[in-house]
Amino acid sequence: LRALEKRFVGTYCIDPRLGLSPELKDIQSVARDFALKEMYPNMQTWDEKEEMPLDCLRKAGELGFGAIYCKEDFGGTGLGRIEASVIFEALATGCTSTAAYISIHNMCAWMIDSYANEKIKARLLPKMATFETLGSYCLTEPDAGSDAANLRTTAKRVGDYYVINGSKAFISGSGNSGNYLVMVRHEGQPGAKGIFCILIEDGMDGFTLGKKEKKLGWNSHPARILNFEDCKVPVTNQIGHDNQGFSIAMAGINGGRLNVASCSLGAAQMSMDLAINHLKIRKQFGKALSEFQWNQFKLAEMAAKLHSSRLMVRDAAHHLDQNTAHKVPLCAMAKLHATDNCFEVVNQCLQFFGGYGFLKEFPLQQFLRDSRAHQIIEGTNEIMRMLVARDLLTN
Amino acid sequence: LRALEKRFVGTYCIDPRLGLSPELKDIQSVARDFALKEMYPNMQTWDEKEEMPLDCLRKAGELGFGAIYCKEDFGGTGLGRIEASVIFEALATGCTSTAAYISIHNMCAWMIDSYANEKIKARLLPKMATFETLGSYCLTEPDAGSDAANLRTTAKRVGDYYVINGSKAFISGSGNSGNYLVMVRHEGQPGAKGIFCILIEDGMDGFTLGKKEKKLGWNSHPARILNFEDCKVPVTNQIGHDNQGFSIAMAGINGGRLNVASCSLGAAQMSMDLAINHLKIRKQFGKALSEFQWNQFKLAEMAAKLHSSRLMVRDAAHHLDQNTAHKVPLCAMAKLHATDNCFEVVNQCLQFFGGYGFLKEFPLQQFLRDSRAHQIIEGTNEIMRMLVARDLLTN
Amino acid sequence: LRALEKRFVGTYCIDPRLGLSPELKDIQSVARDFALKEMYPNMQTWDEKEEMPLDCLRKAGELGFGAIYCKEDFGGTGLGRIEASVIFEALATGCTSTAAYISIHNMCAWMIDSYANEKIKARLLPKMATFETLGSYCLTEPDAGSDAANLRTTAKRVGDYYVINGSKAFISGSGNSGNYLVMVRHEGQPGAKGIFCILIEDGMDGFTLGKKEKKLGWNSHPARILNFEDCKVPVTNQIGHDNQGFSIAMAGINGGRLNVASCSLGAAQMSMDLAINHLKIRKQFGKALSEFQWNQFKLAEMAAKLHSSRLMVRDAAHHLDQNTAHKVPLCAMAKLHATDNCFEVVNQCLQFFGGYGFLKEFPLQQFLRDSRAHQIIEGTNEIMRMLVARDLLTN
Amino acid sequence: LRALEKRFVGTYCIDPRLGLSPELKDIQSVARDFALKEMYPNMQTWDEKEEMPLDCLRKAGELGFGAIYCKEDFGGTGLGRIEASVIFEALATGCTSTAAYISIHNMCAWMIDSYANEKIKARLLPKMATFETLGSYCLTEPDAGSDAANLRTTAKRVGDYYVINGSKAFISGSGNSGNYLVMVRHEGQPGAKGIFCILIEDGMDGFTLGKKEKKLGWNSHPARILNFEDCKVPVTNQIGHDNQGFSIAMAGINGGRLNVASCSLGAAQMSMDLAINHLKIRKQFGKALSEFQWNQFKLAEMAAKLHSSRLMVRDAAHHLDQNTAHKVPLCAMAKLHATDNCFEVVNQCLQFFGGYGFLKEFPLQQFLRDSRAHQIIEGTNEIMRMLVARDLLTN
Ligand SMILES: Cc1cc2nc3c(=O)[nH]c(=O)nc-3n(C[C@H](O)[C@H](O)[C@H](O)COP(=O)(O)OP(=O)(O)OC[C@H]3O[C@@H](n4cnc5c(N)ncnc54)[C@H](O)[C@@H]3O)c2cc1C
Ligand SMILES: Cc1cc2nc3c(=O)[nH]c(=O)nc-3n(C[C@H](O)[C@H](O)[C@H](O)COP(=O)(O)OP(=O)(O)OC[C@H]3O[C@@H](n4cnc5c(N)ncnc54)[C@H](O)[C@@H]3O)c2cc1C
Ligand SMILES: Cc1cc2nc3c(=O)[nH]c(=O)nc-3n(C[C@H](O)[C@H](O)[C@H](O)COP(=O)(O)OP(=O)(O)OC[C@H]3O[C@@H](n4cnc5c(N)ncnc54)[C@H](O)[C@@H]3O)c2cc1C
Ligand SMILES: Cc1cc2nc3c(=O)[nH]c(=O)nc-3n(C[C@H](O)[C@H](O)[C@H](O)COP(=O)(O)OP(=O)(O)OC[C@H]3O[C@@H](n4cnc5c(N)ncnc54)[C@H](O)[C@@H]3O)c2cc1C
Repeated sequence: LRALEKRFVGTYCIDPRLGLSPELKDIQSVARDFALKEMYPNMQTWDEKEEMPLDCLRKAGELGFGAIYCKEDFGGTGLGRIEASVIFEALATGCTSTAAYISIHNMCAWMIDSYANEKIKARLLPKMATFETLGSYCLTEPDAGSDAANLRTTAKRVGDYYVINGSKAFISGSGNSGNYLVMVRHEGQPGAKGIFCILIEDGMDGFTLGKKEKKLGWNSHPARILNFEDCKVPVTNQIGHDNQGFSIAMAGINGGRLNVASCSLGAAQMSMDLAINHLKIRKQFGKALSEFQWNQFKLAEMAAKLHSSRLMVRDAAHHLDQNTAHKVPLCAMAKLHATDNCFEVVNQCLQFFGGYGFLKEFPLQQFLRDSRAHQIIEGTNEIMRMLVARDLLTN
Repeated sequence: LRALEKRFVGTYCIDPRLGLSPELKDIQSVARDFALKEMYPNMQTWDEKEEMPLDCLRKAGELGFGAIYCKEDFGGTGLGRIEASVIFEALATGCTSTAAYISIHNMCAWMIDSYANEKIKARLLPKMATFETLGSYCLTEPDAGSDAANLRTTAKRVGDYYVINGSKAFISGSGNSGNYLVMVRHEGQPGAKGIFCILIEDGMDGFTLGKKEKKLGWNSHPARILNFEDCKVPVTNQIGHDNQGFSIAMAGINGGRLNVASCSLGAAQMSMDLAINHLKIRKQFGKALSEFQWNQFKLAEMAAKLHSSRLMVRDAAHHLDQNTAHKVPLCAMAKLHATDNCFEVVNQCLQFFGGYGFLKEFPLQQFLRDSRAHQIIEGTNEIMRMLVARDLLTN
Repeated sequence: LRALEKRFVGTYCIDPRLGLSPELKDIQSVARDFALKEMYPNMQTWDEKEEMPLDCLRKAGELGFGAIYCKEDFGGTGLGRIEASVIFEALATGCTSTAAYISIHNMCAWMIDSYANEKIKARLLPKMATFETLGSYCLTEPDAGSDAANLRTTAKRVGDYYVINGSKAFISGSGNSGNYLVMVRHEGQPGAKGIFCILIEDGMDGFTLGKKEKKLGWNSHPARILNFEDCKVPVTNQIGHDNQGFSIAMAGINGGRLNVASCSLGAAQMSMDLAINHLKIRKQFGKALSEFQWNQFKLAEMAAKLHSSRLMVRDAAHHLDQNTAHKVPLCAMAKLHATDNCFEVVNQCLQFFGGYGFLKEFPLQQFLRDSRAHQIIEGTNEIMRMLVARDLLTN
Repeated sequence: LRALEKRFVGTYCIDPRLGLSPELKDIQSVARDFALKEMYPNMQTWDEKEEMPLDCLRKAGELGFGAIYCKEDFGGTGLGRIEASVIFEALATGCTSTAAYISIHNMCAWMIDSYANEKIKARLLPKMATFETLGSYCLTEPDAGSDAANLRTTAKRVGDYYVINGSKAFISGSGNSGNYLVMVRHEGQPGAKGIFCILIEDGMDGFTLGKKEKKLGWNSHPARILNFEDCKVPVTNQIGHDNQGFSIAMAGINGGRLNVASCSLGAAQMSMDLAINHLKIRKQFGKALSEFQWNQFKLAEMAAKLHSSRLMVRDAAHHLDQNTAHKVPLCAMAKLHATDNCFEVVNQCLQFFGGYGFLKEFPLQQFLRDSRAHQIIEGTNEIMRMLVARDLLTN
């Protein structure tokens, strides 16, 4: 740990502080300190126990990490996307899985902040900002994954209620969440246009949870199937317009992509720091491993992967902040590049640790398992290729 | 399972039976059936419970898989290295981790068969052939991993005993094993030449075990640190000559490299079969995933990786059988190529499963975790590069 | 040159002789000697002058390299596909482009040997075997490349003649060839079934040649467009059945794929030998370049690429010889793997030469340019992926 | 050409204009127009003829491209490094080789601007700014390439002259240049510290040129060996201090790395535009090639490679402009990443053209040949890895 702290004082060409304004460096420093002190020492336990670190989330809330890019009116922190990226990256150095959940929670808070009516905002956002209540994003279904617009959960209006039937799969945070932002289809209205977004709350009638999934990583927060059987939800819980659900989901996930990409940056950054340290200390054949040219040159390649990933993410975040014409493909491209490249970086760091990299006592394997998720979630990296290609070919 | 069985009836260009003689196909078929019936249905449980499937090993022993390439005199099966490779590959389709341990056990049996005196052979081999007693290969130390010749465990002769002091790290099977083939150094004799091999048996005085390591994969068998504090071992337990220990270790591991490479083949083969099946069945965007050209072309690239890996392994096995001049670099090159390429194949198969690939309910993530070990053990893939380069540059 | 000759005496793990029978080694040795003495010293000139080395071809004919895998009845050498692969590989070490043309010529000879009537065979094969007459394979058209079955050159029967109209593109050897094996369509018969193969001879009425194409590589033989305007060809020049043309073309190209893949092996092998030599001799920073670990480890990776490519090619050649069920995807997979991997090997060898690799005085850049063709011709590597995927998904 | 012009009007996620200020976009637009009109139509001829397009250079001079980042005092354009990068990238879309020479010329001008005395500046810079006189950078020697500090050309002071002996290799522009910035060693002073920089002018006594090298690419400008035999150069021609030569050379090349990296960006950008266009127009199997998912997804990956390269280059240019602590490794990392990735992009674009990509009539193969140089020059990409690793490991 001391070595890690030292690293954050010294500097080198992949320093995550490079290019940031003093204010952003301060924000980063707060997040990084939090990650090193409150998260990193616990990440192994959280992974093993497969329990959500609610305490840690609440403390993160105190620092303003529960609603980072929500407006300040209802408790949001009022920052932009680059700030959010810097924070998620920093948090992920301490526990990638927990940072990833925090990022999903933030995506939900932003969706409420951007699309819900004032009443809902006033009711939910303050509690979400402090992590008193957790949020879940509910788009995927067992038969509608990559083709999410094809979802089949239906809502039928009956008086002041919607009656919801169907199920959602892989819902992060489920079981612990209070607020589920669920994309559902108006009965009989096919296609993306038939979808709207509705807030379903923990404990509502007809809403039950499947068992907690056992996963390769992302173990510090649960994923479950949600089942809705004649689940009655007040119409006032609708978020956004009648045919706006898919747009809302896509608007949210756009930022979500940068968020998980940022979590990959953090996993890679921490793995690099740990590896550099290890290579300097560990000796074989009478020399520090860092003296072997192969390891040196590999480090350089990894640095290029990490640095280019970071630049891509921050550049896309800027486009998202500015709401430019190409924000969608740029977010997709950043997610594709960063999550693929950072996975490779982490995997090579694991290799640098030799047998020790394979042990749970060392965090490399956990960074590997956690960051593997990012190539699949928020739209798989194949779907990212599709979005980028579409932009390249239609303009 | 039915789909998998069907696959083994149908055929395609990566069929592991291609190129094999009828006899070899029979052997393969026995191993594959065993893998599908006795191992595959249990691999998840073994991983979760982190317990050794001793029953399964005994049954494997009944099929002759405990001493595959030992001579038949003391219970060995008397087969060659290609046969062994075919068997390990087939077993690994059912549980890669268990197959890998079986392969280590076989390496130990072979070392005894090749270098021990008749007495030891008669005492140990029959029990090893049946898996009544398990074997462990003990070379690595906390400070001597890649540079194994630099090991520091010492043996001092006192009368009819050696007094052993030091420790070994990452020893597979330890805790369950009866026979530990330990490389130790004659006190005061530095370098590879000072090393000899000695059989240390479970329960000997001064021999204690560290805690079971928690690992990313390879969970169906334990790894532990071994500690020797004034451990007394009869001199008759010595295997091979006084300065032959390192050669014995290297001779054993040469085959060991092909064995774990074969286990990677099995992991990749099974992952391919599962993935092809999944791609055909799973629909998104109104089409089977197998209809998307990206997936098709990726499959083709993966087929090339798998098939080339298999050819490399079998080619090297042939050289090992024939004891040719380049067997060492060829085994190293096969291990490098196969374990790297098969890891990539498995990882891409996981991706084909989308979110399901990330769940423990599906075996992909386990094949990934298990086959990740193979890039590190039996000499890391960096050490493999070293061995190949040496051959290229000195001849 | 002396260093290269020495290399062929010494041995290492990527020795192309490994695994060959004494007879095959003899054949290889003849081809390799020829390549080193008759081709290698001239390859730069042939490239620069862009002229066909007809003398060299004739001499190759004397060694039996004009009709390697044709039956001996009409002058063929009567060897199999592995022999052919070994020969093309060896020739390509001397001049990859020339070897590639020799391989196309052989493909044509084989098509005649296998499908033509005795009269044509008797007339053409003896001269082709000696390279007195050259052959060209004419499938591609300006608008029908990858989708060759969609070709539009038509033949209309008028009495004892076919009247041919249309054009062919990229025809290797054209201008120097005497015999053009042209795939044409029976007027009004769409699809692959409408195609037949006809021999069009140099000088026939209505047959004209476009200008010689300027190319990145493959400069020791010409490529041109062929134009047929009411070109009258005797019906007796038809080869094979009326609807067999596409099958013949595909049967020929199957072997053709292994042939160019073998040429890639030769380019990579020679580049490796030159590079190893250079790395040992060239000093920077006070050390031979071969002492730098990065270079060593890269060499090891390149060795694995080359050796796996060779095994794939020879394995597929065996399947082709044995006419097994999976010969088509196995040839495709070998071509994909070998031409992609060998290109990377050659490219890295060029890098090892630093600035010298960029100079025409050194052969690396020529091996690069020549072997680049192989990823495109005989069906692009994308088409190879298609063929492999089809086999994986339909069986 | 019209399609290319259209592209520069439309927009997509890899638009080189993204992220630029209006002023920078104007500069870029001038450079791009010049490239499209004055260079692109001639690039094939320049390559074929292997002649320097002096006219074109002079016209480029009129636009201020002869001394882009020199101060305005003596005719420099007074722009920064990001501007320079944007210009070189734009020029390289028209002819990568010519743009690369322009970049070397600019590096020389900058070295004079930064280190020469006022007299030399006044004499040379105005003519260099207009390309009336060309500059050459002369560091490499036959035996000192990557290890340039080990150069052996010596200077002995005799009165008001230095007497220079030795030779330089691979000197771009030589034969056409008027000003050669030559790094030489004070006789008897070993190491980097013994080196100083001296201006040697065309026609000076004892200064002769070797033959023009034949090269894989970069054919629109010559490279030659320079020979100095008792070449007398006035001491007033010295540039910078006595022991500053190596620093000057390294300071210059730092920017030089970004410059050639920018040229790789241009090559990749133009190749992408050409490829996208071709994929949309060319039909096979009844569909536009752009409709095949493999091609689409590949395009997306290539976009990520190109965009990340551009961000790396511009980010490093910013650091160079700001003279930050990590400018050296950041320039090295940008050069490594951009030249490697853009080469891959160009190579894949060539593949998209099928057989046409292999023809000299189409520019893809020329972009490939030209950009291949960039992985070797201005310090090979291995040396770049060394510089990055050093920074990672020592801070
Ligand atoms: C740990 C975890 C947490 C998650 N959390 C959430 C959450 O909180 N909320 C939520 O809504 N969802 C969540 N998801 C679901 C996730 O978004 C989906 O898993 C993902 O979108 C992929 O869908 P799928 O699993 O159904 O895979 P599929 O869509 O079945 O895809 C399988 C494979 O096919 C590929 N593929 C699909 N379509 C094409 C095509 N047209 N062309 C080529 N290839 C294609 C995919 O890329 C993938 O490789 C989570 C998933 C995981 C693993
Ligand atoms: C699950 C598991 C089971 C195992 N089972 C056994 C067993 O049963 N018996 C046994 O004896 N051992 C066993 N091992 C130990 C294994 O063989 C070692 O982990 C391996 O040899 C690497 O040694 P190390 O862990 O000390 O890594 P190190 O040697 O410290 O290597 C660390 C990193 O540095 C690299 N490196 C080392 N030297 C160089 C160099 N000169 N140049 C460039 N890079 C270099 C390595 O490749 C690696 O990437 C097992 C290990 C694992 C993980
Ligand atoms: C030097 C040289 C020599 C040659 N010699 C001969 C010869 O002697 N005889 C002869 O008949 N031909 C010859 N050819 C032609 C060669 O076989 C064709 O160039 C090749 O088959 C590709 O066809 P094309 O050039 O029309 O490319 P296209 O078919 O237009 O292909 C362009 C690109 O699209 C890709 N593509 C095509 N279809 C698909 C798809 N469905 N999905 C995804 N990607 C796709 C291709 O892989 C390629 O990357 C030669 C070519 C060259 C360059
Ligand atoms: C077209 C062209 C134009 C050029 N123009 C100029 C010019 O205008 N002015 C000028 O001064 N120079 C010029 N150069 C020279 C260029 O800078 C050198 O070629 C380059 O620096 C490499 O030096 P080298 O060719 O001697 O290769 P070497 O230094 O011999 O390197 C050979 C190989 O060994 C590798 N290598 C070297 N050292 C190590 C190490 N320690 N560890 C691992 N690998 C290592 C290199 O990366 C390379 O792959 C030009 C070169 C070319 C090709």
